[in-house]
Amino acid sequence: MQEQQETTVTADHIKNVFARYCELYSAADVDGVVALYAPDATVEDPIGSAPYRGHAGIREFYAASAGSVLLEMDGRPRVVGNIGVGQLRATPKDSGMYIETTDLMVFNDEGLITSMTAYWSPDTIYYD
Amino acid sequence: MQEQQETTVTADHIKNVFARYCELYSAADVDGVVALYAPDATVEDPIGSAPYRGHAGIREFYAASAGSVLLEMDGRPRVVGNIGVGQLRATPKDSGMYIETTDLMVFNDEGLITSMTAYWSPDTIYYD
Repeated sequence: MQEQQETTVTADHIKNVFARYCELYSAADVDGVVALYAPDATVEDPIGSAPYRGHAGIREFYAASAGSVLLEMDGRPRVVGNIGVGQLRATPKDSGMYIETTDLMVFNDEGLITSMTAYWSPDTIYYD
Repeated sequence: MQEQQETTVTADHIKNVFARYCELYSAADVDGVVALYAPDATVEDPIGSAPYRGHAGIREFYAASAGSVLLEMDGRPRVVGNIGVGQLRATPKDSGMYIETTDLMVFNDEGLITSMTAYWSPDTIYYD
């Protein structure tokens, strides 16, 4: 279980990163998304899959889908110390379906994401 | 990080447990809430606090507040294998405030909750 830690990062910063994450990814700004991450960060999306590591790997992951998916918050992120947990909806364009995910992000003292874990599965995909 | 596991529990069961959890707790049915948990389960609410362990401890935790709080889902639970992640809103009656939490529940093959971890903090409390 991920434990929260003392941090100098503010809750407002973490909440804002979720909003920017959705905006940047939806706008296909892959550089902008990657810049939210620490250089040695990991992305495990969905949980249980092989993590992408570091800026190059993370860029590869987002570049594969950016521009073809609308990503929106579904409620407000929950923030505890250096952890943010955000419920999101990802809608691939012209697909007739959407994916409901919850993304758990851990932050370092510089306000960068050190790990992101996405909780979604075929059981959280819905059709219009 | 909590990893999901192969399980015989269905996603529909896990989604239903979140709905029943809200209903039972809001109705002050403490026995009903406790019965959702495995006998050796843990409740860490909020994350970072000392966990309550076992049915007796879990009963003590819920009995302290049941009947005075309305608990509602905020969107649909995300389910991955034996893990459910639900975004909730807890409204203490006549308080003028509400708490936004995300509860991560892990299930055993009998469909009982083996651990619940709640992600909320003073930064996720809002006032009407």
